[in-house]
Amino acid sequence: MKERERILVDIAKNEARYLRDLKALLHQPSVSAQRLGLEEMAGLLVRMMRKYGVKARSIPVKGGAPMVYGEIGNPNGGILLFYNHYDVQPPEPLELWKTPPFEPEIRGGKIYARGVADNKGNILIRLAALQVYQDLYGSLPFQVKFLVEGEEEIGSPHMIEFVESYKDLLRADACIWESGGVNFAGQPVLTMGCKGILYVELMARGARRDAHSAGATHIPNPAWRLVHALATLKNEQEQILIDGFYDDVLPPSAEDMRALKKIPPEENKIKKSLGLKEFLLNLKGLKLKKRALFEPTCNICGMISGYTGPGGKTVLPSSARVKLDFRLVPNQKPEDILKKLKAHFQKHGFGDVVMSTVEQGEYPARTPLGHPFVRLVQEVAEEVYQKEAVLEPMTGGTGPMHPFIHTLGLPVVSVGAGYPDCRAHAPNENLRLSDIRKGILFIVTLLRNFR
Amino acid sequence: MKERERILVDIAKNEARYLRDLKALLHQPSVSAQRLGLEEMAGLLVRMMRKYGVKARSIPVKGGAPMVYGEIGNPNGGILLFYNHYDVQPPEPLELWKTPPFEPEIRGGKIYARGVADNKGNILIRLAALQVYQDLYGSLPFQVKFLVEGEEEIGSPHMIEFVESYKDLLRADACIWESGGVNFAGQPVLTMGCKGILYVELMARGARRDAHSAGATHIPNPAWRLVHALATLKNEQEQILIDGFYDDVLPPSAEDMRALKKIPPEENKIKKSLGLKEFLLNLKGLKLKKRALFEPTCNICGMISGYTGPGGKTVLPSSARVKLDFRLVPNQKPEDILKKLKAHFQKHGFGDVVMSTVEQGEYPARTPLGHPFVRLVQEVAEEVYQKEAVLEPMTGGTGPMHPFIHTLGLPVVSVGAGYPDCRAHAPNENLRLSDIRKGILFIVTLLRNFR
Repeated sequence: MKERERILVDIAKNEARYLRDLKALLHQPSVSAQRLGLEEMAGLLVRMMRKYGVKARSIPVKGGAPMVYGEIGNPNGGILLFYNHYDVQPPEPLELWKTPPFEPEIRGGKIYARGVADNKGNILIRLAALQVYQDLYGSLPFQVKFLVEGEEEIGSPHMIEFVESYKDLLRADACIWESGGVNFAGQPVLTMGCKGILYVELMARGARRDAHSAGATHIPNPAWRLVHALATLKNEQEQILIDGFYDDVLPPSAEDMRALKKIPPEENKIKKSLGLKEFLLNLKGLKLKKRALFEPTCNICGMISGYTGPGGKTVLPSSARVKLDFRLVPNQKPEDILKKLKAHFQKHGFGDVVMSTVEQGEYPARTPLGHPFVRLVQEVAEEVYQKEAVLEPMTGGTGPMHPFIHTLGLPVVSVGAGYPDCRAHAPNENLRLSDIRKGILFIVTLLRNFR
Repeated sequence: MKERERILVDIAKNEARYLRDLKALLHQPSVSAQRLGLEEMAGLLVRMMRKYGVKARSIPVKGGAPMVYGEIGNPNGGILLFYNHYDVQPPEPLELWKTPPFEPEIRGGKIYARGVADNKGNILIRLAALQVYQDLYGSLPFQVKFLVEGEEEIGSPHMIEFVESYKDLLRADACIWESGGVNFAGQPVLTMGCKGILYVELMARGARRDAHSAGATHIPNPAWRLVHALATLKNEQEQILIDGFYDDVLPPSAEDMRALKKIPPEENKIKKSLGLKEFLLNLKGLKLKKRALFEPTCNICGMISGYTGPGGKTVLPSSARVKLDFRLVPNQKPEDILKKLKAHFQKHGFGDVVMSTVEQGEYPARTPLGHPFVRLVQEVAEEVYQKEAVLEPMTGGTGPMHPFIHTLGLPVVSVGAGYPDCRAHAPNENLRLSDIRKGILFIVTLLRNFR
């Protein structure tokens, strides 16, 4: 406890500086979906990292946003890699922000700005932790590397190739991922995996122009065509009917199931927030948690055909489109699922339905719960937060974890300074200043225990 | 042939006046869907009818466009009722018109304007025919009545109630319907029936706001819900699966089938126009004609859910909507089909899908081909056009024929001065001047033979 006090005092001493630097990062818009401010952000970040003693540089990516790489310390003592991203979600709808998204403001013990929770706050926290460590304990006996990308919010389209090309540069012993936080009960949440994704668009075509609906007896209707094609993909019991779809799905281990049981139930809070009486299939408890983290999905993101305005128009549409995303779990592969999806439509007589992939897919990936690095991070988290840590074997979402786990061979644990109302991706995104302090304490403590 | 010459000479003598009066009708916009110019049009039409010796008046309709009623001649000699409508389709898209839609212009032997084919041209033709008749043969030995409505293009929502209320006023022996024309081969086409319609909108609801698609494992997706609900309505063989849907469908009679056989095949022209290689179910020949005229439909007019813009957004929609129209054949009833549709969704466990009717439905109705009035119109048509008439027992479209046939007890035959390229409902709508002349000759000859 003595050491904790020392660290907290040092954090408090420099807090004004950390917040000033965080505000500087937040002040620079960096919206990957809009290609806005990415080069400027990368440049600013390199300068900021250098201020904290990190040997940083920007690495150009052909057709993409630059990667920011940095290193500090002695590689002979082991290497810890921090993965972060400097891009943010679009700030729209602007009218719902209480203060402008790129003009950070502190009020009521919270700092508000687009990207503060996801994930510029965690970047500054990790830099501040290095500062505290050096203030108190001198130079690092091991090395810390940073990789900060600028395209996470658009599916990290260049990460697989980049990691492949810079395998040596990125060599490490373990990786701390970008985000995380505490749950409603204040327990630190550690996440060890991400789902993968395949995103496709389907289009059916009929006549070359919309026709009068009197012709529905004999003119093909692409909306019906798509309805029938979709109905072959998934049944009402939510089973995905593509041959071989589940072949590579790994069931959760006994260890995974033990971890699931320990995740606090927050069902009612989620249902209330979504205005739902029941979850799909009336899922509850362990079954719900198991499905959310270990099952793949086939989801309709959107569909459109014909006349959708007010009132009635008697039209027979000339085309119909649907967007689908499949969230994949280990060891499913997006290119394999795409192949099986194509074969499915051929088999069911829907070879006329045109399919295109909207984004490059991503692979699912996870680090086993029993890995010593997971245990280390867990022990540090429980010491710092003084509560039992929640171990999430996977999240339902997607991130570029796969090349870090499989190309670089690293154990990956995701942690951060978020909390349930931090509003990542939404207006009035924020972090609590107390969580930022504790986040710095967490990383300093991790550094002290890393080797 | 002598008489034909006499009539044509009289038509020619007054043609300039008829065209001037037709232009006056066309110059007045009267778009029911936009509630534009309907009162003005009704007033203009009353004045025009009076000029032609018809005792005309406008009858207000609560919440609707006025009905224009007129009569001329001696009711003791029998009564012929003309049904027409003075409203027109919206003229949009305006940029595709060569000359403005409400500035009628004659070029290349055709008169162009919105509503000239559908159906102001036929109104003027019928008035002109009365003029010719009186010029050549004196006053009418029987009575002609006109009923001209202003809401045909929006589904005639007030017609059933109006006919019920004005049963005595509308008493007649037979009815000539609003529209028709010659086919590609120049044969006059007579139509003796209309399909009915039921138009509904279905909506499925999920969470109260769009959710992140990572939640697709446990958050209900209304787009999937609607896909599954729709898939129970119709199979890939185009069979409508609602219990009892076909119960009241009358199969075509032997006489109907003979008439169908005589309808010239125009399949290739239609396929070319629509850019289709094959019709639905590879329909051809008699089977195609039978299905087009005697089978009901269940058609998706439009559907929408979630994100439909460019690229990929990983969203789980909060609602999904679809618009359906059912074209009904004798003796199906829209309110009965609605009841069966509701029962269908209950039975299949889709009671949560919200259903609303978009427009008041319409009933199908037809006059038997063997009716003496049909034979009379056919003989007159063949004499005037000097080609075999095509008898269409029904059309695939919908109109308010039901109260005329069933409440007033009239035989109804639809004829007019159109041709395959008259572009009703489309930009550059037009009639050929030669078809207008022949149309007047047709009605004069019909009047001479009516009693």
